[in-house]
Amino acid sequence: MSESPVDVGLLTPVAVGNDEAVTDAAFLAALVHAEVALVRAHEAVGAAPAGTADAVQAGLNAAAPIDAAALAEASVAGGNPVIPLVAQLKDRVPGEAKTWVHRGATSQDILDTALMLVARDASDLVAGSLHETAEALAAFARAHRDDVAAGRTLTQHAVPTTVGLRAANWLRGVRRAAARLDDATRALPSQLGGAAGTLAALVEIAGTDAAARLPAAYAEVVGLAAPEAPWHTTRWPVTELGDALVQAIDAVGVIAADVATLSRTEIGELREGSGGGSSAMPQKRNPAASVLIRSAALRAPQLGATLHLAAALAVDERPDGAWHAEWPTLRELLRLALGASAHAASLAQGLRVDAAAVARNLGATRGLILAERLSIVLGPVLGAPRVAAIVRAAGEGEDLEALIDEALVEQGASAVDVGALLDPANYTGLAGDLVDGVAPPENETLRAP
Amino acid sequence: MSESPVDVGLLTPVAVGNDEAVTDAAFLAALVHAEVALVRAHEAVGAAPAGTADAVQAGLNAAAPIDAAALAEASVAGGNPVIPLVAQLKDRVPGEAKTWVHRGATSQDILDTALMLVARDASDLVAGSLHETAEALAAFARAHRDDVAAGRTLTQHAVPTTVGLRAANWLRGVRRAAARLDDATRALPSQLGGAAGTLAALVEIAGTDAAARLPAAYAEVVGLAAPEAPWHTTRWPVTELGDALVQAIDAVGVIAADVATLSRTEIGELREGSGGGSSAMPQKRNPAASVLIRSAALRAPQLGATLHLAAALAVDERPDGAWHAEWPTLRELLRLALGASAHAASLAQGLRVDAAAVARNLGATRGLILAERLSIVLGPVLGAPRVAAIVRAAGEGEDLEALIDEALVEQGASAVDVGALLDPANYTGLAGDLVDGVAPPENETLRAP
Amino acid sequence: MSESPVDVGLLTPVAVGNDEAVTDAAFLAALVHAEVALVRAHEAVGAAPAGTADAVQAGLNAAAPIDAAALAEASVAGGNPVIPLVAQLKDRVPGEAKTWVHRGATSQDILDTALMLVARDASDLVAGSLHETAEALAAFARAHRDDVAAGRTLTQHAVPTTVGLRAANWLRGVRRAAARLDDATRALPSQLGGAAGTLAALVEIAGTDAAARLPAAYAEVVGLAAPEAPWHTTRWPVTELGDALVQAIDAVGVIAADVATLSRTEIGELREGSGGGSSAMPQKRNPAASVLIRSAALRAPQLGATLHLAAALAVDERPDGAWHAEWPTLRELLRLALGASAHAASLAQGLRVDAAAVARNLGATRGLILAERLSIVLGPVLGAPRVAAIVRAAGEGEDLEALIDEALVEQGASAVDVGALLDPANYTGLAGDLVDGVAPPENETLRAP
Amino acid sequence: MSESPVDVGLLTPVAVGNDEAVTDAAFLAALVHAEVALVRAHEAVGAAPAGTADAVQAGLNAAAPIDAAALAEASVAGGNPVIPLVAQLKDRVPGEAKTWVHRGATSQDILDTALMLVARDASDLVAGSLHETAEALAAFARAHRDDVAAGRTLTQHAVPTTVGLRAANWLRGVRRAAARLDDATRALPSQLGGAAGTLAALVEIAGTDAAARLPAAYAEVVGLAAPEAPWHTTRWPVTELGDALVQAIDAVGVIAADVATLSRTEIGELREGSGGGSSAMPQKRNPAASVLIRSAALRAPQLGATLHLAAALAVDERPDGAWHAEWPTLRELLRLALGASAHAASLAQGLRVDAAAVARNLGATRGLILAERLSIVLGPVLGAPRVAAIVRAAGEGEDLEALIDEALVEQGASAVDVGALLDPANYTGLAGDLVDGVAPPENETLRAP
Repeated sequence: MSESPVDVGLLTPVAVGNDEAVTDAAFLAALVHAEVALVRAHEAVGAAPAGTADAVQAGLNAAAPIDAAALAEASVAGGNPVIPLVAQLKDRVPGEAKTWVHRGATSQDILDTALMLVARDASDLVAGSLHETAEALAAFARAHRDDVAAGRTLTQHAVPTTVGLRAANWLRGVRRAAARLDDATRALPSQLGGAAGTLAALVEIAGTDAAARLPAAYAEVVGLAAPEAPWHTTRWPVTELGDALVQAIDAVGVIAADVATLSRTEIGELREGSGGGSSAMPQKRNPAASVLIRSAALRAPQLGATLHLAAALAVDERPDGAWHAEWPTLRELLRLALGASAHAASLAQGLRVDAAAVARNLGATRGLILAERLSIVLGPVLGAPRVAAIVRAAGEGEDLEALIDEALVEQGASAVDVGALLDPANYTGLAGDLVDGVAPPENETLRAP
Repeated sequence: MSESPVDVGLLTPVAVGNDEAVTDAAFLAALVHAEVALVRAHEAVGAAPAGTADAVQAGLNAAAPIDAAALAEASVAGGNPVIPLVAQLKDRVPGEAKTWVHRGATSQDILDTALMLVARDASDLVAGSLHETAEALAAFARAHRDDVAAGRTLTQHAVPTTVGLRAANWLRGVRRAAARLDDATRALPSQLGGAAGTLAALVEIAGTDAAARLPAAYAEVVGLAAPEAPWHTTRWPVTELGDALVQAIDAVGVIAADVATLSRTEIGELREGSGGGSSAMPQKRNPAASVLIRSAALRAPQLGATLHLAAALAVDERPDGAWHAEWPTLRELLRLALGASAHAASLAQGLRVDAAAVARNLGATRGLILAERLSIVLGPVLGAPRVAAIVRAAGEGEDLEALIDEALVEQGASAVDVGALLDPANYTGLAGDLVDGVAPPENETLRAP
Repeated sequence: MSESPVDVGLLTPVAVGNDEAVTDAAFLAALVHAEVALVRAHEAVGAAPAGTADAVQAGLNAAAPIDAAALAEASVAGGNPVIPLVAQLKDRVPGEAKTWVHRGATSQDILDTALMLVARDASDLVAGSLHETAEALAAFARAHRDDVAAGRTLTQHAVPTTVGLRAANWLRGVRRAAARLDDATRALPSQLGGAAGTLAALVEIAGTDAAARLPAAYAEVVGLAAPEAPWHTTRWPVTELGDALVQAIDAVGVIAADVATLSRTEIGELREGSGGGSSAMPQKRNPAASVLIRSAALRAPQLGATLHLAAALAVDERPDGAWHAEWPTLRELLRLALGASAHAASLAQGLRVDAAAVARNLGATRGLILAERLSIVLGPVLGAPRVAAIVRAAGEGEDLEALIDEALVEQGASAVDVGALLDPANYTGLAGDLVDGVAPPENETLRAP
Repeated sequence: MSESPVDVGLLTPVAVGNDEAVTDAAFLAALVHAEVALVRAHEAVGAAPAGTADAVQAGLNAAAPIDAAALAEASVAGGNPVIPLVAQLKDRVPGEAKTWVHRGATSQDILDTALMLVARDASDLVAGSLHETAEALAAFARAHRDDVAAGRTLTQHAVPTTVGLRAANWLRGVRRAAARLDDATRALPSQLGGAAGTLAALVEIAGTDAAARLPAAYAEVVGLAAPEAPWHTTRWPVTELGDALVQAIDAVGVIAADVATLSRTEIGELREGSGGGSSAMPQKRNPAASVLIRSAALRAPQLGATLHLAAALAVDERPDGAWHAEWPTLRELLRLALGASAHAASLAQGLRVDAAAVARNLGATRGLILAERLSIVLGPVLGAPRVAAIVRAAGEGEDLEALIDEALVEQGASAVDVGALLDPANYTGLAGDLVDGVAPPENETLRAP
């Protein structure tokens, strides 16, 4: 093959170094593994003679490895790589064993099983990164449980929150996504149905009873879930995994969105542990991990949509294009999830808070971030119009505390502790409890009742 | 409001008659319900005086109903309908009770809760239609369990299958989707967090303990799941539901794809119970339900993608546009699911098989649909090259049975029963069992062992 | 019809007040108009007797108006509203004229023509809003041509830019989008092909010559472009318009993204003329228009994708679902474009700059925003390592000007005017020219050479 | 780099052999070319000494080639490959010339220019394939101009059409897409703006006049359109190209949809020149090219949507993730367009018609495909109810011609030539003219008037 590889990562930096589990080489290995495993399953149900699978494997071990690029080229005529793969495998396997290669199977059995194998391995890595992310976020949330900060809605300061609560919210999203991904991964089935999903060839070859046991035997050999039935055109295994991967990327994407925002030069509350540099502007500390994660988060949903379209268009006993659209789409989604989750883990581990910036920002509205509280507390005392007037005047630059003091004196309501009223730390509601709920204090169990 | 409604269904026939649960009127009712329920929750935790919620409700009952179009117009300035709604509610509620309207809440608390209420009601209707669809498909699969038909892959006849197995596959997809939708629906939480998700205003109003109990109390009043925490920017409730709705539409979409294909004039194996007519061409029997379902299936995945994008971009304590993008998108997805699933149920109930067409098509390749079987059975007897030559010759018009007979005679292998070999009914593998697995015979329990 | 309208705008505030051109009532009017115009075209080519169209119109004028919701309900059976519409029209038209209603046409002829009519009217409104936006942006860019501000890349201060250049960039995007939308709108064709796009019925009715002239005559009556040929399954008119609408929404979306960002409490450089309020937090000035525009910008691309999918799946002489998926999708895209562009116009007209905030932010890095310039200018004098050390030290809090002075003195290079070097106004490159290129000074023509 | 390439085409057979123009190697070459060209542009405006670019190129020629995978790895820290590339280039360039490498530029200048270079080259190849496709379709349409065939709407036979008209419609779509792609390709600009799009560094280096001439000089060196202004955040060049590529894929996608449908075993009107085989089922002739094209057509629209999202989110002077999401998305879109258009060309060149199948299908409704004509012609003679009754009876199996004859005799209207009336060839309307309009007879100019 003179053609160079299409993709070595140059245009997808988010995934570089994290996507080895989903390379074409990994897929090729999975395809071969799926074929050998099928022989092993034939043995397991008593159809193939004992030792056949080992003979197949030995033949492959002894022969030249299969070249992925050459296989890709050979796959064009028939539209899928399994057709030429089978020929190449048979070339490499001697004697009787050769007849058991791909026996009774259809291309889709092998390709779908390989897709699930690669997906399972990659998803487990994603799950690992999500768990690392969660652990780091939990520690971060604990450490900053009571750091009061400006809460922002629609870009504007609203009321106080805490740095810890923000992280706790990220953490809940990551935990939910990890659980969902785990469910989807554990449900990934092997595929074995033959040309039209009836297992007719397998029945012909192995007899009804053995054929009936084959799908579960095959699942066991490859370590996937046993399918309820062939799912050649019932594509929930693909879409449910796709949805879970998109959800995982969403969960880290929202962290990246917050970190990028809170790292802005003017805000500066957060900083990635290792910011990206700029050759021309050495002073910059780009939130590089957040940028990479966001590059994935903006792409993933549309990839998930393609999987659903393919599922809805899975016509006949094997569709004319919809199935083929799944392969690169699911791979890219796995790849983005691998990259985004790995960067999220290191981002969470290295994330630093600039306490001074947090405090500075919290004070940026000179107390008006507590306007809601003033309405609640002072409204009954001063009347809503007066409170509104105070807020308005403060908004135009007057001193909020002085305005309140003055109004309270007028009203003869001097019992109110205005200093405490205007302390944002006194208006964080249940933020601490909400952190504890998802990131309990480390040594909580030591605390005696 | 002089403006006429944007959408009464003229451009979305798939949903007409099935989308009452998701009209703007239904949303308005849900918004009002969410506000009244909040007062009731305040009562439940002991914050508001007993009877307040009833007073609020009585005030609303006595006053003029709120106009949805006028509310929509008033919502533009602030970007969401809750802001003007609160003003209108307060206008309608007398005395002390007025102060408890929207007390301590933020717009997003009410809007998200209303969104979940509407989503729950609509999803339950979708689930109902999916269950009806499943029941009808099970009956259909049973009835046609052993109807042998051509199996098709990549548009071409491949090997035999059965009409029943095809329906059983549809059924598995629908069952899976229904279960997933049920999970997502049961997980839909109410929302209650206050301006930045800290419940600070609620703590201020009701005290810490009562505030801590409020979200669960609120959930109980409205009949949604109690949230683990405010989820203003942790949007899995929306995306998980969205994914489940898309999956539901996929599941019925693939039925529609098959029915539309198998209803083609040249194929004619299936016919919708009540085909769509054509004024100009009275002879046509359009697969109208399939067409409508497909119109939904082609739109749904991209709507689901928008929900994920919104989730990944849910920055700050409330995002600047991503949240707003969810509302109409989730509604349209619910609407499509309502329409598509309702049409799927009636399609499944009325679906008819043209047995003659099934048989005619099965014979279209004059036996070559059994080529795979011939390779397996005759290959060892005649050698693969001879079998291939036979298939080739038959493909060019020669009589397959005669060719085989001749070859077997040459080979002295006359023991093969060529008639049985070429009977498609003998090459359906486990099709019957696969039907039974999901649509067991009605009176199976009566069959003694 | 007991069912209430699905959509009066409650969940799509961005469009409320701007979408009258695309309501179902507008579509119904366009459908009726398309039918009457067809009769008029029949007259124009001499097929129908003179006066027939007037008689049809008179019949419709005299009769009860057609109810859109009832028509929607009646459209379910056949899957499109034209089938029942024709029946209703014929009911309303007396005598001979009745036979000319829908004569020789197919549903798609009428529906596509109506879609194009509505699209043209709505697109022209969008174009109007884009032009207003452009005019306002040009004035804004001129007014702030030389207001130096921090330029930001990857969220971080990079080098100076100007407020005017940022607006000029927005303006270029809006102008390009407006030109593209205009091209797409002018190309929108009427549709007339009959049942399978051959015009066979029209030939039968009117003769070959008249039939050949009918499509152009029809186009002229309705004021659309004359189609090269029937485009029942050649859907570029829909996708090119869709692309142009998405591009228009992108163009205003990026303005909204910038305004929302630069309105952040900590940044505060821009403010919408009329910010959205918050009942609970009266101090907030939400960038409400930007939020609404962004809610559209996050949805539009996926709607555009659906149109392309429908185009790629336009099988046969009329497809089984893909066509139906276009209608509500194109309408929603038009609607979002109407709303987003109208809000963009008022946003651009009201946009205000807080010069003090601009200046404060520009100084936030205490000169380091000029680090690139320092490398260029001081690198040759002091050597790159020394410049880097200076930047690093300044980044840790030391005084940049003092560090430079000291280094220059050491180097004996006192000729450098450090004050001028560190003045951001001296490092805006061609910003002014780039503004002038798209927003030339108002009275430029008065300036004599 | 131990990691193997992610993608050598194994999962994207549609593109294998057609995507060399968009490999990472091609991108790397374009990046290097963009850097060298910048030096050449500096020379052209008189900023850099004559000979500098040659010296840079000579240095690169003499040094080891840059490894794309290693560069990808090095790009992770900063998030884009240009940062490490510049370092590697400087390592390879001697003396004074080194200082002119990347002089005054920002990463985005180089990356965007390289993206446009690759896009231009790839788009020109796509255009070439579209033109080949168009030529072949024109010949096909001519050859089958008068082959009468069943026209189908909503999967059902509607009225006759011709094989030629169907191809003419495909051709119109391809021609339109080619023209649009050409427009978009010719508009692709180079990028040169410096860190924040002001060209400040370039002014500092080269002076105002030379800097002002640099972008056009750069465009000329690389052979792209001269940009009106830096377009770092004004992304229409990317989205307009993306839209045109999706339109191109739509245009060939609809051909593939029709070919796949019309190749169905039961329909068999069309056959790809070289069908895909199946190892297990040698009798199958899969429409392999159509399947591959469809696999692209189902993916492309969502990729186009991602480009629009990135455009709408291009905040600041360079966005924090949106820009990065464009690179792999545009590459994949180019890749799919390359593959789909190449397969479309060979599909169009090899497409074969089975005239017997066409005729057989045309007769499948035993005349009822002419029901519309019967209404028009016989309606006035026999009355609409009688015509409807005839059609109904024929639909139930009676002989259509006999029914008509009988009715005409009853009516005393024996002048009607029923044989001619029921000849589908007499009811193809303007099909021939519509073919001629886009695929005129080869030797038309020879035909004297």
